Amino acid sequence: MRSDGREYNQLRKVNIIPHFNKHAEGSVLIEFGDTKVICTATVDEKVPPFMKGEGKGWITAEYSMLPRATQVRNQRESIKGKLGGRTMEIQRLIGRALRSVVNLEALGERTITLDCDVIQADGGTRTTSITGAYIALVYAVNHIVETHKLPVFPITDFLASVSVGILNDQALLDLNYDEDSKVKVDMNVVMTGKGEYVEIQGTGEEAPFSREEMDNMLMLAESGIRDLIGLQKDILGPLSEKIGNGQ
Amino acid sequence: MRSDGREYNQLRKVNIIPHFNKHAEGSVLIEFGDTKVICTATVDEKVPPFMKGEGKGWITAEYSMLPRATQVRNQRESIKGKLGGRTMEIQRLIGRALRSVVNLEALGERTITLDCDVIQADGGTRTTSITGAYIALVYAVNHIVETHKLPVFPITDFLASVSVGILNDQALLDLNYDEDSKVKVDMNVVMTGKGEYVEIQGTGEEAPFSREEMDNMLMLAESGIRDLIGLQKDILGPLSEKIGNGQ
Amino acid sequence: MRSDGREYNQLRKVNIIPHFNKHAEGSVLIEFGDTKVICTATVDEKVPPFMKGEGKGWITAEYSMLPRATQVRNQRESIKGKLGGRTMEIQRLIGRALRSVVNLEALGERTITLDCDVIQADGGTRTTSITGAYIALVYAVNHIVETHKLPVFPITDFLASVSVGILNDQALLDLNYDEDSKVKVDMNVVMTGKGEYVEIQGTGEEAPFSREEMDNMLMLAESGIRDLIGLQKDILGPLSEKIGNGQ
Amino acid sequence: MRSDGREYNQLRKVNIIPHFNKHAEGSVLIEFGDTKVICTATVDEKVPPFMKGEGKGWITAEYSMLPRATQVRNQRESIKGKLGGRTMEIQRLIGRALRSVVNLEALGERTITLDCDVIQADGGTRTTSITGAYIALVYAVNHIVETHKLPVFPITDFLASVSVGILNDQALLDLNYDEDSKVKVDMNVVMTGKGEYVEIQGTGEEAPFSREEMDNMLMLAESGIRDLIGLQKDILGPLSEKIGNGQ
Amino acid sequence: MRSDGREYNQLRKVNIIPHFNKHAEGSVLIEFGDTKVICTATVDEKVPPFMKGEGKGWITAEYSMLPRATQVRNQRESIKGKLGGRTMEIQRLIGRALRSVVNLEALGERTITLDCDVIQADGGTRTTSITGAYIALVYAVNHIVETHKLPVFPITDFLASVSVGILNDQALLDLNYDEDSKVKVDMNVVMTGKGEYVEIQGTGEEAPFSREEMDNMLMLAESGIRDLIGLQKDILGPLSEKIGNGQ
Amino acid sequence: MRSDGREYNQLRKVNIIPHFNKHAEGSVLIEFGDTKVICTATVDEKVPPFMKGEGKGWITAEYSMLPRATQVRNQRESIKGKLGGRTMEIQRLIGRALRSVVNLEALGERTITLDCDVIQADGGTRTTSITGAYIALVYAVNHIVETHKLPVFPITDFLASVSVGILNDQALLDLNYDEDSKVKVDMNVVMTGKGEYVEIQGTGEEAPFSREEMDNMLMLAESGIRDLIGLQKDILGPLSEKIGNGQ
Repeated sequence: MRSDGREYNQLRKVNIIPHFNKHAEGSVLIEFGDTKVICTATVDEKVPPFMKGEGKGWITAEYSMLPRATQVRNQRESIKGKLGGRTMEIQRLIGRALRSVVNLEALGERTITLDCDVIQADGGTRTTSITGAYIALVYAVNHIVETHKLPVFPITDFLASVSVGILNDQALLDLNYDEDSKVKVDMNVVMTGKGEYVEIQGTGEEAPFSREEMDNMLMLAESGIRDLIGLQKDILGPLSEKIGNGQ
Repeated sequence: MRSDGREYNQLRKVNIIPHFNKHAEGSVLIEFGDTKVICTATVDEKVPPFMKGEGKGWITAEYSMLPRATQVRNQRESIKGKLGGRTMEIQRLIGRALRSVVNLEALGERTITLDCDVIQADGGTRTTSITGAYIALVYAVNHIVETHKLPVFPITDFLASVSVGILNDQALLDLNYDEDSKVKVDMNVVMTGKGEYVEIQGTGEEAPFSREEMDNMLMLAESGIRDLIGLQKDILGPLSEKIGNGQ
Repeated sequence: MRSDGREYNQLRKVNIIPHFNKHAEGSVLIEFGDTKVICTATVDEKVPPFMKGEGKGWITAEYSMLPRATQVRNQRESIKGKLGGRTMEIQRLIGRALRSVVNLEALGERTITLDCDVIQADGGTRTTSITGAYIALVYAVNHIVETHKLPVFPITDFLASVSVGILNDQALLDLNYDEDSKVKVDMNVVMTGKGEYVEIQGTGEEAPFSREEMDNMLMLAESGIRDLIGLQKDILGPLSEKIGNGQ
Repeated sequence: MRSDGREYNQLRKVNIIPHFNKHAEGSVLIEFGDTKVICTATVDEKVPPFMKGEGKGWITAEYSMLPRATQVRNQRESIKGKLGGRTMEIQRLIGRALRSVVNLEALGERTITLDCDVIQADGGTRTTSITGAYIALVYAVNHIVETHKLPVFPITDFLASVSVGILNDQALLDLNYDEDSKVKVDMNVVMTGKGEYVEIQGTGEEAPFSREEMDNMLMLAESGIRDLIGLQKDILGPLSEKIGNGQ
Repeated sequence: MRSDGREYNQLRKVNIIPHFNKHAEGSVLIEFGDTKVICTATVDEKVPPFMKGEGKGWITAEYSMLPRATQVRNQRESIKGKLGGRTMEIQRLIGRALRSVVNLEALGERTITLDCDVIQADGGTRTTSITGAYIALVYAVNHIVETHKLPVFPITDFLASVSVGILNDQALLDLNYDEDSKVKVDMNVVMTGKGEYVEIQGTGEEAPFSREEMDNMLMLAESGIRDLIGLQKDILGPLSEKIGNGQ
Repeated sequence: MRSDGREYNQLRKVNIIPHFNKHAEGSVLIEFGDTKVICTATVDEKVPPFMKGEGKGWITAEYSMLPRATQVRNQRESIKGKLGGRTMEIQRLIGRALRSVVNLEALGERTITLDCDVIQADGGTRTTSITGAYIALVYAVNHIVETHKLPVFPITDFLASVSVGILNDQALLDLNYDEDSKVKVDMNVVMTGKGEYVEIQGTGEEAPFSREEMDNMLMLAESGIRDLIGLQKDILGPLSEKIGNGQ
């Protein structure tokens, strides 16, 4: 049994409040246990300079934590004057993952920016962000589809993400902060509704890991992601029907 | 009648959720209508270098808006690599205002940092921040008093803030964003429980204003602040009794 | 009697040398006692991007102190790599104040930048800057009016600024550095030739202040500003006649 | 057959010049085909502040490309004034990977900094850097062991890295730039001499990938890494004998 | 005859106002024609970290131009967020030149910072700065000698600087801005009272220059510097007697 | 005899590998003894904004050292977030020197950027860079001439550079790092094939230097540069014939 009473293959309680922000074209507040992230999607009717004229859209992401999202207060990156390596890695990951399920040609020359702001952190902020940002993205895309009467719904599949790790030779699903700081391997998996991998990042800083350990982690991740996609479908309701027809 | 149906002398609906953050020594989510700010207070058992050895504490504040807190998305200051003038002005104001009701000697050599993060903006973010940060500050100070068994409660008075303005020759209390963008004068007032001024900032960028107009605005501000302090007392409950005994 | 022998309601000796800089479209060296500021006005035949095509002009200000303007040398902001909060607050104030007496439509799509560089500081650098920058502005506007044969002189009123404070229960006009560091309240007032307020900023960091104290300070400020505007008229000579006809 | 004539499971020609730099405690010039990286290891007899007094050493890495290492010239990050996200990701990866085979306690309170400077790029710069930096690290560690007569050789295993990908449904080993820009999946694998994973990073930006594709890629990577470790042993000669005894 | 009526070997009118700043340990306002520079010397009773404990002093310089010192307004380096190459070159030159005539051991572990702020520019700002900063330096050193009763006066010689150039095959002394922008060679010479070179910087960007041209320029520079040192002696009066006894 | 066995008037062994980089339009690896610099020339078919439409080309340079090029590791300027004064001085010098032998009109509206990256340093990195960058420049210019069929070869003369200094009253040619740190005067000379000066920079930080010492240094520099130009001709082969016909 885990410190918070969960089984090894059990997600934390996931809570999703859609339309959390009154200004954004898409938004949710998503909670994986005590990890809480506000995800907003902003539509901009142009693309970055390097993509101009190609007739394709762009999806990008930014990630940040409020200074006291964590147990010990972190200095703001605005005050340091630059983004840290961890922030850059995470926001590059979020953007890349979401782009994999968007038909950029069908989206047209527009940019959607996903802002993932962690207001409280307890492990798994990047996987929570991807899972929540996906929903905000769908709302924003739907807003575009309706406003501009796009012939095709440009989201090609569902997408969610979860962390897994090995603690005392046991693979665990959806690590909280306490577990995350103890595991010997930490792996983040991003997967589509069809069960294919979009991103796998496994790191054994403390110690290398074997092929068998990896296989166990991947199995757990797959089952967790299937559950998360189920929750996304519940929240999105009828919008779910439109996904995947655009490919 | 105002666009949102309020009387000229009526505050927006104020909502305060205490202990919103599980990590911070003090925290609230405060809402003035659609303006929503997370205020956290962090205690650090040391003071900035320039104050070392003086036996006094320090109160400082940081202010930020999530990129999509506003109707049009704002670029993050962490990406610009520096704080804008507006941010600096506001966080200097918040820190200065809160220091005016803290007995820094009684606090001892500690720093309390108030983080005010606007998650949704609809006018009055700086006055909402001051009013909410005050509560987070009281919780954090109480935490110190209890942990370190301080003999005196180092908060000397209540403190709240509200905006006022002149629109079509009519003074208005607690401007929302729509009103804020139309008024000819905009004034922010910070006042103590004893009814004294801590800060008055009145600006007539569009047009200068007369002494009479100023007097009308100050009268409205005073009544609004009295109501806000009433709400602070309700939230703080028995803790309210300790305030002002430390002077 | 004050440390420098002045009465409570007496300005320091004010000295203004017009056309101090041979390159600028308008310039003065202005001295309030030992506080010395070079103010230059630069005309640029375009406006910032966000104002393009609106047919209106723009007035902006920058403020800086030489490193040894002060008793203790300050590090240059160019070396720190960023502007401090105090600098930003002051230059935003100067720009805002000057814009309030300019008819921006009549000015046409041009920008005037006021550079206020403090070469020696002894309190009141922001009020000295506003008072001096106003004169540089009038020269630069006159240069535009003559060069481009504008039909209207786009300055609508006079404008000056002074500081006031409360020291030992006595309101004082035009604080020098020594007084500034001792007062319990510090207020900067910007006022037009017609006696209306453009900006009031009162701060009681050490202690809150009462309505009566504020009234006393405002009265002193008004008399000081009237004298400063008299000096501006002396310097500007016949140019004074053109001011206020443009509204 | 691949564009450069290689088999799907064939490494590019690997060339390693040890002791390339006369100042550094360890150095190599390593070439994977036309990708050329100078790796130097610098020993510093102290650790970062956050590790002081723990009795453990630290390994860190920095990565950069000469502006014309690439087909199109890149702007220097020193001129941009900040590191890009890609640079940060890569140097965090290199440092993390190398730390996994160092017994930091046995190293003692010292820092070894690995500088990986790409002087010509043709794909796989991060895997080339890890493979070369490992050798520079061994030299530098040996320098410490001999200078300070450490009782244990603090390198616990060999370590090398290679990229793999899927192009036209075929898994390929050690992608060059041309291939890298065409593959649908790109995976970087870091593995130890014992055949355990230290890091797996697989990304399917263009399209998701299946479990079977992943398995194929991992198999290729393993064989490539085994060959690279063979080359490392050839270069290190007798030093190879000391590795792995320190665990 | 030159555009301003001078002979080829004639300096501009040089004007020096000593003790221009009431706060600094040494200061002058120096004018070479329309080029005007405020030079202040600040004494700090410590040295930079890299010199700590060596028993030697340090002399350093900073250089800046007010934005409207020039015909066209320059953006402030504080707003750009960094110093330009020209600024760095000049301030490194000023510091290096002044250090050459200071006995750093006799000065003791102190730093003197020379701030050279150009308030109006018309060519030759770096040579004007060196010539003026030298005087401010002597005042500051004298302040130290008297305050700390140093046994030796740590200035070993006089020092001044002037520019020379070749225009239409004619060598010219002390170029103004107009000439500076037309010459084919521009040379700055720094020389001691004993007639030895401290720095020679000759640049023929437009066209290379011959040995004979260089000789002509050096001859002119020497005569100009001799005159400047004469003016320094007049200003310094009896203090001049102490210079050179410290070597 | 010098520490490395050379005569006072002897260059170090100079080694030049042309076409060192497969991507650049021109490149060399140049070695003056243990000082090794990679010089690449990049052609860009446009000019900086301030030169647009003038029909002229532009030559610019960037200079950097790998962190461990030196005995003690230097922090990267990309991590400091800005270029140091030394870097700026050197790259401005390289660009200025090369421009002096290019017919910018004949080049047409194109920019050539010379990147000089020091991979190992042992004194004289700036003179080595100029001498090597010249060759890379010629290759890149030739590439333009051939691609665009320019009627004139826009390089007007040869150009090389060397350092000289005075050690123990003896003038020395081509200082290595050890000598460079001991000399009382350090002079860098840039000269054309016709024997005219392009740049002379002599600095006597430790002690001033006499006219006679300068003359001795210039004589040595001239002979050294003549030899370097001989080597450039050997490397360039038939291309040498085209140089100087473009003036």
